[in-house]
Amino acid sequence: MPSTVAGPEIERLIQLLARLPGLGPRSARRAALHLIRKRETLLMPLAEAMRVAEEKIVTCSVCGNIDTRDPCSICADPGRDPSTIVVVESVGDLWALERAGAIRARYHVLGGVLSPLDGVGPSDLAIALLVARVAAGGVSEVILAVNATVDGQTTAHYVTDCLTEYPLKVTRLAHGVPVGGELDYLDDGTIAAAMRQRTAF
Amino acid sequence: MPSTVAGPEIERLIQLLARLPGLGPRSARRAALHLIRKRETLLMPLAEAMRVAEEKIVTCSVCGNIDTRDPCSICADPGRDPSTIVVVESVGDLWALERAGAIRARYHVLGGVLSPLDGVGPSDLAIALLVARVAAGGVSEVILAVNATVDGQTTAHYVTDCLTEYPLKVTRLAHGVPVGGELDYLDDGTIAAAMRQRTAF
Repeated sequence: MPSTVAGPEIERLIQLLARLPGLGPRSARRAALHLIRKRETLLMPLAEAMRVAEEKIVTCSVCGNIDTRDPCSICADPGRDPSTIVVVESVGDLWALERAGAIRARYHVLGGVLSPLDGVGPSDLAIALLVARVAAGGVSEVILAVNATVDGQTTAHYVTDCLTEYPLKVTRLAHGVPVGGELDYLDDGTIAAAMRQRTAF
Repeated sequence: MPSTVAGPEIERLIQLLARLPGLGPRSARRAALHLIRKRETLLMPLAEAMRVAEEKIVTCSVCGNIDTRDPCSICADPGRDPSTIVVVESVGDLWALERAGAIRARYHVLGGVLSPLDGVGPSDLAIALLVARVAAGGVSEVILAVNATVDGQTTAHYVTDCLTEYPLKVTRLAHGVPVGGELDYLDDGTIAAAMRQRTAF
């Protein structure tokens, strides 16, 4: 859109919206128009919610989660098992595990995965912080809930190596057939893993 | 996401983002995380751009376009032909025509199409305003650039009926094969229209 059509203010709004994941240039234009049309009910509340987020949201200094307090609600929750730490790549993965209600434990957000091609080394991730938490004692299990990608698995191996000197169990998520999944649509690696790790029925 | 995970502030941000067209609950979560990660470079500038939009953007009282001034830059542009009015359904369609650089004329945004099923009647659209513009004189052509949908064509017929008493040409966009389009993928109606309206080569 040439900026002469609707002025630089709208153009800037569109350009910033287009940088959100899931929105391209075309859907960013639609989103901007929608925002301007719903000024009272969406544009103003969203601007305010973003201002609040910008002001209040902090990264938890213990686990790397984001929250409005530090330590975060999960680290501060006395109802959670402090002896189990679930290691995840990102806050999004932490949320996914919480939505599933899979476990009531503590978390540790690495902030990414090791990726030599992208120049991400161990010092770029919160691995030293994890080792320090384990070294402080009281942790009996570390569950590696990293993604089942090559970089994720490399990172899992690296983290395991860093923890070998401590007396704890290091586990990882099971591979297998997704619940509701059909064998015909699954890749060979997943089927092979599901067969290897078959359980009693 | 249960609100206990990350607090009601983040939850509210996600819910508002999910109301943007093109974003669902899952992509809104990703967008919120992205915003929080890029606090300085995206969250703050976007909040500011939205505040500016909320404060400055107005609807043009002449044509219904949105801009930071009224009349809008297009209505105020002396380089545009004031005798031709292009009638569009929405500001998004106006932008699409401007991007294409199809014509240097004035516009008129109807704000929708006639749709009895959705309870949209002539008084809900800016049709009376269009008739008033035409009645004021100086308009020799009205181009109906409404979408080629049933409701769009109904609206085009209605607008044409409203303009019959004025001495002007009412035209509409040509139907035909999209540039770069393949016949095999086109619907029968479009092929038939393209054949009927064939031009000398």
